[in-house]
Order: sequence, then structure tokens, then C-alpha cells
Amino acid sequence: MKTVNVALLGFGTVGQGTFNLLQMNQDLIDHRLGFRLRVIKIYVRTPEKYKVTLPKGVSFVTDMDSILNDDSISIVVEVMGGVTFARECVEAALQAKKNVVTANKDLLAKEGPYLQDLATERGVDLRFEASVLGGIPIIRTLYDSLYGNRITELIGIMNGTTNFILTKMSEEGLSYSESLKQAQELGYAEADPTADVEGLDAARKLAILASISFNRRIFFDDVYVEGITTIDQTDIRYGQEFGYTIKLLGIAKETKKGLSLNVLPAFISTKHPLASVRGAYNALYVKGNGIDDAMFYGQGAGSLPTGSSVVSDIMEIARNVAHESTGMFKPFFYSEKNLYAPGKIESSYYMRLIVENSTGVLAKVASKLAEQRISVQSVLQRNEDENTATLAIVTAPCPRSYILNVIDSFNHLRSVRAVGSVIRIMPE
Amino acid sequence: MKTVNVALLGFGTVGQGTFNLLQMNQDLIDHRLGFRLRVIKIYVRTPEKYKVTLPKGVSFVTDMDSILNDDSISIVVEVMGGVTFARECVEAALQAKKNVVTANKDLLAKEGPYLQDLATERGVDLRFEASVLGGIPIIRTLYDSLYGNRITELIGIMNGTTNFILTKMSEEGLSYSESLKQAQELGYAEADPTADVEGLDAARKLAILASISFNRRIFFDDVYVEGITTIDQTDIRYGQEFGYTIKLLGIAKETKKGLSLNVLPAFISTKHPLASVRGAYNALYVKGNGIDDAMFYGQGAGSLPTGSSVVSDIMEIARNVAHESTGMFKPFFYSEKNLYAPGKIESSYYMRLIVENSTGVLAKVASKLAEQRISVQSVLQRNEDENTATLAIVTAPCPRSYILNVIDSFNHLRSVRAVGSVIRIMPE
Repeated sequence: MKTVNVALLGFGTVGQGTFNLLQMNQDLIDHRLGFRLRVIKIYVRTPEKYKVTLPKGVSFVTDMDSILNDDSISIVVEVMGGVTFARECVEAALQAKKNVVTANKDLLAKEGPYLQDLATERGVDLRFEASVLGGIPIIRTLYDSLYGNRITELIGIMNGTTNFILTKMSEEGLSYSESLKQAQELGYAEADPTADVEGLDAARKLAILASISFNRRIFFDDVYVEGITTIDQTDIRYGQEFGYTIKLLGIAKETKKGLSLNVLPAFISTKHPLASVRGAYNALYVKGNGIDDAMFYGQGAGSLPTGSSVVSDIMEIARNVAHESTGMFKPFFYSEKNLYAPGKIESSYYMRLIVENSTGVLAKVASKLAEQRISVQSVLQRNEDENTATLAIVTAPCPRSYILNVIDSFNHLRSVRAVGSVIRIMPE
Repeated sequence: MKTVNVALLGFGTVGQGTFNLLQMNQDLIDHRLGFRLRVIKIYVRTPEKYKVTLPKGVSFVTDMDSILNDDSISIVVEVMGGVTFARECVEAALQAKKNVVTANKDLLAKEGPYLQDLATERGVDLRFEASVLGGIPIIRTLYDSLYGNRITELIGIMNGTTNFILTKMSEEGLSYSESLKQAQELGYAEADPTADVEGLDAARKLAILASISFNRRIFFDDVYVEGITTIDQTDIRYGQEFGYTIKLLGIAKETKKGLSLNVLPAFISTKHPLASVRGAYNALYVKGNGIDDAMFYGQGAGSLPTGSSVVSDIMEIARNVAHESTGMFKPFFYSEKNLYAPGKIESSYYMRLIVENSTGVLAKVASKLAEQRISVQSVLQRNEDENTATLAIVTAPCPRSYILNVIDSFNHLRSVRAVGSVIRIMPE
């Protein structure tokens, strides 16, 4: 029976998940492949750090050359993270005609197309299912199962930390800071949560998913980003009265004028399938001109789930190795880049105004909205005290510029004390 | 530029969806593949029936040999339906070393493994993504993206007709027969709805999905089936009070004693992701020892969505044709068959009893439950009139045999007038 040998670079959360899954399911995987698949070397800097007994035939190595020069190894799996050294290793592996699997989002966003070209030149495969959305099979789904579709829109819950926080706020009435604290205690959020709560992590994932879906090279900087730090309970409650749930969404939408890329907190109907994605789960909702719509849901992180995505890449490549058909498919390919200012996308908006509690205020606000050609779909007015009331307004779809203009005009209206918040509403 | 030529057998809903999608996205598909993909012949019995003008280079043919003997055709797409003639055509195509895509659930359930062996013997591919769950990419996901997992459970909403009916009943309070009538008017249900409402269609799909997931050859007859015709509003309302939604579920679960296969109406927590699958949509929820859990959601039928699945198969095979690597992978492979009586699966149950409206009835019912070692999780008691009350009971998980025994014992209890219904509750 033939054997395909694998080397891991790195033995952290994802590396151990990959290794453990391959061990747990070794018989099944061999049976399904029709040949043996074995990890034989694991590159780490300090083997002493890992208090594990490796099975017979597997060893830690501290010298990259012992992998690069080992002709029995066909697949190198980069699960170290970081960009500089990871890039060196991946490049060296490809040069040495090793197939490469990587789970490294940052490396891919930066060097994906270059590394892919190198892989093709060397006749080997480069795969990266685990680089976004953890255990959810999505990269392969986009370039394989949905490849006959013209994708028109991606809407994703791409960050488990923020979805956990917003779920806590919505379902348990906790404040943003209480929810963040719980997320940190449970290990869902880092001590410095900036990359998650400001939407940067989601924007990086959106850039990779949109690159594959729309066949354009999209970078993090192309994505308009807003985080969730200003979302508060008041807006969540008003949203619920209007039938909405709040989510941090990554949205890539093809329009007649080009591609629009946004990460922002938005209201979504409680009946939309994304509304049911709770806690630390992730999901990608995809629209295409064949499928109409579909959604892919699962664990966006975690050792074994992310390991499952790495293993699916390893198995795909192992089959190609066994069939001598590596280096034949390139997931990334690009036509012209054509982006579109996010401000020009139309949508409905929710606005919360703090106004004077007096007769005629609604009329004044309504006339300002009418001046800007903004139609109103619903209004809730609540008296807060003798002097103050809240107006929660849902508009019909209109360009963002109209909303910015009307907010500006409210500043000249004495009876509007403050604009509490403005939140985009996703169409159903 | 190379061209891969395709022939369609049949030009009904799925055939036209396939053809139209390939036409609409022709440039994109050619660009993504790096070569031309063209339908050149469409086999139908009576071309006059189709009031379409085919593009240049495409023609209807009424003679199968003009496809089988055409060396320029690499891929034959069977979208006729039916078993006998479809089988003949698929077999002849494989014998002629044509790769085959089929959307034919019945053919696959019956002849899948035989046809696959024939394909391998002839060095060609056989694919069938469109045979279950329409536009949802699931077959390839199971044998590709999730192939490193030991799948432990599948839970699916696999029939759009019944999900439409149950959604109408739950959300709009319509009766079963009113909902069925609407489904028929909208074209979701056939004049004779038996195959859908009795769960037979879902059982056929479950057999195929479980065959791939659990690597055993599973037939329709292996699945325990109950339909939705006895579900009524009373139970739906009680279920909502307990926090449940009713769904017709296909469930394949690996247990220590073997594989259990069921299609039955069941209550599921409104917080479960399957609860949000509304109307004619389908979804498959998958548990595996790597991914933990994931869900795949989308259109379970329809011309273009199902066409999208057919096109994904055509594109996969076209790449294999271009790379001269067809005939290398077999999605079906089997280890030993090991089934398990569905009655032995533990779960919580909902029971609705019509009882005498008198003091002490609850105590009598509770003692019968205790005698059968059934723990009670919640009870709702409603007085219907002076003489009659309803007891709605949710039990702790227990074997189905306990429930059958307690129902038997209720028949000997004068104060229990009738057992209105018994519905399984899925664990969260």
C-alpha cells in the first residue's frame, strides 16, 4: 500500500488539531483514500515545550532542511502563523516541489497569488481552506461547488468574538463591556480585542472570500470597516421592536458600478437565516445567479474544526499526489479590479434621535427627511421625561449620502438634541 | 483554446436549468476553467415540443447513438429522470467511455455503486451532486471537505413541500389541509402529495446522504419513516409554548450499536439552526468528530439551483478531462452494513393526553410515567371544559420502548381518555 507523507510546520492550536484529527481517524482516512496518509515530521523551534508523546514514526525536527530535503515528504502544512518566516518556509517548500497547505490568512492576503503562481510553476498544489471561517467548508465550496455561478453577493458573520458579544447583548441584555469581559474569560476574545471588535479580522476574511468569489484581487484596505464598540442596548431593543437582530456583517456586493466591500454592524430581519447564527458561530450567506441563495454555517475557530479544514486540503492534495495530478488548478485568478465607494450603496437605515419632548417635533424631523427625499417606513416615539423624547426611525432604501445629509440638517434643528445612532438595515 | 463538449439527455426543468446557466455564465465559466465548455447535443424524444431557438452549434438529437458515437463529446449529462431508460443510457455512455453526470436520485439509489464501478473500470467519472437537496452543495462537501471527519450524525430538512406546509401551519396558523392546498397551488406539492407528505422522498435522500457519510450501502427500506399528515395545530401551539418548532427531519445517527435511520416529524428548539429553515428551503446539519457541527442551507429544488449542482459536476469533470485525470475517485465505497432499530434510540418525547378534568389525574399519570422510569421535564395542564383537560408533557430522554409501554399503560387508566399525540424532541 502506497504512503503519502506529510510534514507539519508548527504545533499550536491548529497544528495539534490537524495532527489529532489525522490520528483519531487514521484508519477511516486511509480506507477512504485507498492509501496511507502519515505525518512523519513536525517542525517546531523548541520541542521541549510540548508535553506530548508522539506516536512511533513521528518526530519533532528543529531544522527546516530535514523536511525540505526529505524526498519522502509530499505535503508541507504551514500552521505557524505570522508572515515573514511562514512565507520563507512556504516559498522554500514550493521551490522544493512540496505541495503546501496553509491556514495562514495574513500570508495569503499578502502573498496568495504570488505563492500560487510559484506552486503552478513547480507543478504542485497550494490550498488554504482553513485560512477563513475555521471548520466551515467554504473556500473549496466557492471554487468548486459554486464555480458555475456568477456570485452576486456574500454576507457573512465572519468573526466569532463579535457575534458572541452581540448575542449576549441581544439575548441577555448585557452591556457591551460586560459581554466583552465574558468573551475574554471564555477565551473567545484576546486581551487586546481591537482586531475583532473593530471589524479588522472580518475585513481580512472578506478580502480573501471576495477575491475567490469575484475573481479580483482584493486587499484589506479595499474594505470599508466599522466596528461594534458603539452599539448599545437602546438600539438593540428598538431593533427588536422593528423585528431586527444586530450582527457584525461582512458584505461584498456586485453592483452595476462595481464591487462594494463593507464590514459593519447592521440590523437584519429575525427571519433571515443569518439571524439564527448565535454565539461564537460563523456563517456565510451566498447569492449567485444559479443557486439563488445558500448558507454555510459552523465553527469559525477551534482546534479540531480548523484542523478539519486543514485535513480536507491534505486529503485533496494526497489524492492528487497519488494520481500524479498536482499543480493543475489555481483557486486565485484575477480579472480587473473594480471597486465601488460603499457610501453609494442603497439600503434602509435605522436612526435614533434624541429630541425635545414637544408638539410638532415629529413634523419638523419628517420635513427634513422629506427634503432629502428619504421615505420613512416606521417610527417609534418614546417620551423619556418631561423634556426629552426618543424617535426611532426606519427609512426606505436610499443612498448613504442622503442619510449623511439629513443628519447634517438635523444639527441645524434646535429640537433635535442629538443623533444617538445610525445603523444600516440589510434587505430581506 | 481547448474545448470540452457536453451532451444533455433530457430537457425538462433540470436540463433547461443546466443549459441556461451554462449559457448565461459561458464567458465566466470558460475563463475560470481556462478552456471552452460547450453543450453541443441535447437528446430528446420530440424536439418539436420545445419552443426554443437553440444557439448556433447546439442541436436536438433523437438518436442516442449520435451522442455515444461522437468522439468529440466527453461528458454526458443524464437529466431525464426515471430508472429503466436512464439506466440504459448511463450504462451505454460509461461503456462508450463518456464521463457521466446524473441528477437521478432513484437511479443512484438503485444502481449507484454498480454504475460507479463501471465508470472506474472505463476510466471515467460519475458524479451526482444534483441528486439530493437541489442547489445545496452537499455530496461533494461530504466526500471532499468533510472527508477527514468521522461523521456521527446527519439531521436534515430534506423535503421542501413538507417544510413549506409545516411553516405555514406554524407561522400562519393554517390547518394541514389548507397548507397543503397552498403548496399545491404554488407548485411545491404534486396533485398526489404522498411521496412528500409521507416522508418517502426525504427517506430516499437520507439513504443517499447516509451512504456517502457512513460508507455503508443504505437503501430506502432501511429508513424508518413517519409522515406529517397527523400533525395538528394543537401540538404546534403546545410545542411553541415549550420553545419548540416542528420539522420533518431525516436523521442518520451513528450509535455504539450501529446506525439508526429515521424520517419523522420532530420538535426542535427554536434556537437550533434548523429551526430557522423556513418555507420550501432545505438544509443539512452535520455532526462530525472534527468539525463539531456545521449546516448547509439553500434551495432544495428549482431549475437554476439544481442546474447549478449539475454544472458544478460538469466543471469538475471537465477539469479532469483537461488534465487527463478522470476515473480516479469513487464517492461510494462500503464497509459492512450495520443498522439499528429506530425504537432503541433515546430521546425526549412530547405527549399530549386528553384526560378527565378532576383532582388527582396528574398524580395518576405521573405515577404511570414513574413506573416506566420516565422522568418528566415539564407539564402544561389546560382545562378544556368542565369534564375534560389536556396534559402536555415533555419527558427527559428515554428509549422509545418506555414511551410505547407508558402509552399502553395509559389505556388501562380510566381518567386518560385518549393519547392525542406523541412527538419526538431532538436534543439541542
